[in-house]
Amino acid sequence: MSRQSSRRPEKQKIDWHLPSSSSTGSAHHMGIELIVLTYGTVVEQLCKDYENDEDINKELDKMGHNIGSRLVEDFLARSSITQCRNFHETAEVIAKVAFKMYLGVTARVTFWTLAGDDCSLFLEKNPLRDYVEIPEKHSCLLYSNMICGILRGALKMVRLQVDVQLLQDSVKDNNITEIRMKLMRRRKVALTAEKQQE
Amino acid sequence: MSRQSSRRPEKQKIDWHLPSSSSTGSAHHMGIELIVLTYGTVVEQLCKDYENDEDINKELDKMGHNIGSRLVEDFLARSSITQCRNFHETAEVIAKVAFKMYLGVTARVTFWTLAGDDCSLFLEKNPLRDYVEIPEKHSCLLYSNMICGILRGALKMVRLQVDVQLLQDSVKDNNITEIRMKLMRRRKVALTAEKQQE
Repeated sequence: MSRQSSRRPEKQKIDWHLPSSSSTGSAHHMGIELIVLTYGTVVEQLCKDYENDEDINKELDKMGHNIGSRLVEDFLARSSITQCRNFHETAEVIAKVAFKMYLGVTARVTFWTLAGDDCSLFLEKNPLRDYVEIPEKHSCLLYSNMICGILRGALKMVRLQVDVQLLQDSVKDNNITEIRMKLMRRRKVALTAEKQQE
Repeated sequence: MSRQSSRRPEKQKIDWHLPSSSSTGSAHHMGIELIVLTYGTVVEQLCKDYENDEDINKELDKMGHNIGSRLVEDFLARSSITQCRNFHETAEVIAKVAFKMYLGVTARVTFWTLAGDDCSLFLEKNPLRDYVEIPEKHSCLLYSNMICGILRGALKMVRLQVDVQLLQDSVKDNNITEIRMKLMRRRKVALTAEKQQE
């Protein structure tokens, strides 16, 4: 093994359950590597615990929901986001502020329905998936599915009931991550410091 | 629930398996919250999978070893650390640079043996433990044990065989984290960009 201190580690494709060090470019914040690797161990552990991919996906979503419902306070405190006027704005805040804050990348918001309650977030660079090769036998595994749960849990805490699904993220999707968000129900205040409203 | 965007979330003691948002002060980097919460889900999952704390501790250490052996490349690339002259320096680099980089805090290195091959790292503020209350029934759980594995795995990659143990971190230790590191064997090059030596 050779190593240089002056450059980023070389790319290398490895067996999926041990994601190697990833590079997400200059926007990349310090702790991301540890998140990526720790996330890898979560998925690896679930693959040991559950027999089929659907159960793993469900469990990742459930874990994410718990994380999201806690993380939202940190996000509101750090981002100084107050009130989003509509779901368009909420989606943009998630894509440009939240993803940047926690994963060091931004997402593209697109494919809006006319009603403005349904859109897709595209992550062209998903750091969680960097350098992970998912074996064919896990063809239905949605590797980054925890993100869906996190969004669902976080949005629920700001009174938005949102259905969140990973449409693209499996072994066959060539590293594109598409997250579909559908606003199901809004309760008074959206992505806000509620205190201002109460 | 009331929330303000201008301040950090309030402290609250909660059931251990759902660590709430933590504050590690101004040095705290953006992604740490996600690491802390994701780590919480790892431990929670292991508590479901294994019946006794010793097995959980062992598994955390093993997972950490895998992470550490990957993370070391990222660390060497980012920190521009080249050569440590001795184990004292290696320990200081871990305590002051590595901990700061990935957990946003520094550790105190102390209790050196005369031979200079055995020391303790004290984390007076361990972000992984922030706001986590471990139930009494997990009295032997070493919550942050993954750190030991990470250090062991990372140091092994730079040819230092080190025994790493959490001496304090359990439910009864009042949030002090003490990591004992004992250098067992050194192979030529310590915590370094090996290229310079080869």
